[in-house]
Amino acid sequence: MKKQVTLETIISLSKRRGFIFQGSEIYGGLAGTWDYGPLGVELKNNIKQNWWKTFVTDRPDIYGIDAAIFMNPKTWEASGHVEGFNDPLVEDVKTRKRYRADHLLEEHGVHKADEFSVEEMTSKIKELGLKSPEGNEFGEVKQFNMMLKTRFGASEATAIDVYLRPETAQGIFVNYKNVIDSLHPKLPFGIAQIGKAFRNEITPRDFLFRLREFEQMEIQYFIHPDDQKESYEKWKKSAWKWLVSLGLPEEKMQWHDHAENERAHYAADAADIQFKFPFGFKELHGVHNRTDFDLKAHMEKTGVDLYYSVEGGEKFIPYVIESSVGLDRIILAILCAAYAEDEVNGEERVFLQLSPEIAPVKVAVFPLLKNKEELVEKAREVYENLRKEVSGVMWDDNGNIGKRYRRQDEIGTPFCVTVDFDTLEDNSVTLRDRDSAKQERVSVGDLAHHIKEKL
Amino acid sequence: MKKQVTLETIISLSKRRGFIFQGSEIYGGLAGTWDYGPLGVELKNNIKQNWWKTFVTDRPDIYGIDAAIFMNPKTWEASGHVEGFNDPLVEDVKTRKRYRADHLLEEHGVHKADEFSVEEMTSKIKELGLKSPEGNEFGEVKQFNMMLKTRFGASEATAIDVYLRPETAQGIFVNYKNVIDSLHPKLPFGIAQIGKAFRNEITPRDFLFRLREFEQMEIQYFIHPDDQKESYEKWKKSAWKWLVSLGLPEEKMQWHDHAENERAHYAADAADIQFKFPFGFKELHGVHNRTDFDLKAHMEKTGVDLYYSVEGGEKFIPYVIESSVGLDRIILAILCAAYAEDEVNGEERVFLQLSPEIAPVKVAVFPLLKNKEELVEKAREVYENLRKEVSGVMWDDNGNIGKRYRRQDEIGTPFCVTVDFDTLEDNSVTLRDRDSAKQERVSVGDLAHHIKEKL
Repeated sequence: MKKQVTLETIISLSKRRGFIFQGSEIYGGLAGTWDYGPLGVELKNNIKQNWWKTFVTDRPDIYGIDAAIFMNPKTWEASGHVEGFNDPLVEDVKTRKRYRADHLLEEHGVHKADEFSVEEMTSKIKELGLKSPEGNEFGEVKQFNMMLKTRFGASEATAIDVYLRPETAQGIFVNYKNVIDSLHPKLPFGIAQIGKAFRNEITPRDFLFRLREFEQMEIQYFIHPDDQKESYEKWKKSAWKWLVSLGLPEEKMQWHDHAENERAHYAADAADIQFKFPFGFKELHGVHNRTDFDLKAHMEKTGVDLYYSVEGGEKFIPYVIESSVGLDRIILAILCAAYAEDEVNGEERVFLQLSPEIAPVKVAVFPLLKNKEELVEKAREVYENLRKEVSGVMWDDNGNIGKRYRRQDEIGTPFCVTVDFDTLEDNSVTLRDRDSAKQERVSVGDLAHHIKEKL
Repeated sequence: MKKQVTLETIISLSKRRGFIFQGSEIYGGLAGTWDYGPLGVELKNNIKQNWWKTFVTDRPDIYGIDAAIFMNPKTWEASGHVEGFNDPLVEDVKTRKRYRADHLLEEHGVHKADEFSVEEMTSKIKELGLKSPEGNEFGEVKQFNMMLKTRFGASEATAIDVYLRPETAQGIFVNYKNVIDSLHPKLPFGIAQIGKAFRNEITPRDFLFRLREFEQMEIQYFIHPDDQKESYEKWKKSAWKWLVSLGLPEEKMQWHDHAENERAHYAADAADIQFKFPFGFKELHGVHNRTDFDLKAHMEKTGVDLYYSVEGGEKFIPYVIESSVGLDRIILAILCAAYAEDEVNGEERVFLQLSPEIAPVKVAVFPLLKNKEELVEKAREVYENLRKEVSGVMWDDNGNIGKRYRRQDEIGTPFCVTVDFDTLEDNSVTLRDRDSAKQERVSVGDLAHHIKEKL
């Protein structure tokens, strides 16, 4: 029986079991940052590798890149981010603390406040008589740029302002010509990238959902302008299919098509797959028709020719369909979806129903008792042999067998192998299945093959 | 016959073939940043995965993490970076441009200038009568902090200064307790991390060698203080062995043991593996005995207990052996080491002798002619079947067969498969070996097996 899991439960399990810790926790944390622990990093790597295999190495039409986080600052002028990558903020006139105006309005029951203009937000705040948490008046709502800025270079004479990229997409657009010149792809083709992006969120919140530092997995797919509708629909389908393949339940997913006033400045069509997080249906995966906005802007700014020429045919600026997903958000969605509780032999237990492909540990091997030398020795042998055949095998001899099952259930390990006294007699072990909690005896010789089949 | 390769040759090949491009190239670049192209990112991923497998997943005693780039700024006070992470700079008194004083002296033949104090550098510059490139006097040499800084938060009232981490090590130390509390490792154990780090280098240079944004692969190995000598020696051996396993030639590697005045403030013992780059023997991989410096500093600053307790035994602050390598530098070393030229059938050729395990493309499949439908169809079939068995298979039908061999040689593809008219008769293909340029006929049915054995 599953119950609706709370965010607190997921945060607590993540910390307790080594998935995710508060960033710089021993210093009291740093808002908007989280650190992945030993299990979290394996889960993350498994998802990244799955995405890369699905969309890059298994596809002859998509090329991977890994661009630097820092880009020439003119990039962000061309892309529109210097001018327009803003959040609407409102300031407490006394304390000078700032708040997200749209979030404030939504918390007071105003629907779709994020679609309001700053003037509309200002007058709505006045109309409702909203006060700051300290009880003071608010000033006018103003746009605030969300890019984080630093300076390259040591002296005032030569140092320049540079931005931490707020999206990975531009790293793809500035390399579009390099990819064409070096690898000669034929249209349609895509360029994919996994990498960090940064936003100066005024109120980071909801665990991995709204971060100041996060990781994106993006494809920019370059097409003939005539193919935009068809390609957009194809990418919507493939995004949905991939999320389902990770084990996300379709009943917790929905499409949200952006209305015209919701779309980013570059998008002709935009839709998000929303996931039902504990705090409601929220954006997980975006598919946008970015048109030729970005390539055109970079061509104008740099004077570099970014046309695509069909061999002996026409010449045009490609349209771009973007398929973009936040890796941290996927991890949060997966942890929420996988969380389950039931009763085994009259005792309540918590387990994570992670799909075996992305589970950080695939098999745990235990000796029944840790102080019986012959059991430990045999279990070590089983463990070492299994490790040669299967990746993600963990040794566990902490606590008693009940504690180990609880721990392995909570980290989503699909299979547990116990070496007991019978093993010494008949060379077979107990193999326990996470979801059913059922146990079967398997001979040691068949174990690796048996597990590989189930995985 | 190999000749000594120049850095320009490597940069040019990297760009031409899609390994590495100048960062934000269409905007004229951004000093100290480079972008990995489609082949570069595969090479990079192969090396990362090899490292992670060798040091994390294949070892039961090492735990991976992935900490945020941004950390609570107090971390950098405790670690000594706010106070002491400096480069010695000297300013042109007229233009106010700054230069690395130690590099300046070295360029003028002063040996080991990096070991001078700022006072010694100042007087040496005076003594030699050095002038700036613009012909002006220099001021005094001063220490300049190399950390990049930005601000989190929107208003002056609440925003804080935060640093882009200058090393990944501290992300490990602040999570030491979290790893112990969640996974209960027994000493000795290590924590490993791959991630970006940032330094405001005043003169980024030598391609991937001295960057403002770079990627580190690090292990901090926690040990009993009594084991420091033994563990330090073990880690030195394992670092050397791993680099050799990637295909780096031992005759281009040497140990450089740090003299006491060369070591970082935290190190009791330190040694680098230097590699013979085109610009000389330079640091590639470091092994440091960081003692209990970092854990002690964080314990003092936070008041959090970072002692390790042996079950029913003593309690102590572990010592730490650090094994740290720059991923970008490894890639540069590998490209330089792999670069080769020889003569095949009277024609000069360039090829990269990459070890098959890390080569971005393992096999390329061509139809002999691209305008013969039956050849293309058969080659497609061979290609599709091979892709199911081997990862890293590329389709190539650009230009004639000679051009394709040249291209595949230059990107280090170990094997090329050509489908020709004989294939249609006898169902066999030509398999060409990169290093020997020798060709053999292999039946299509045996092809995957044959290649897998060679890889």
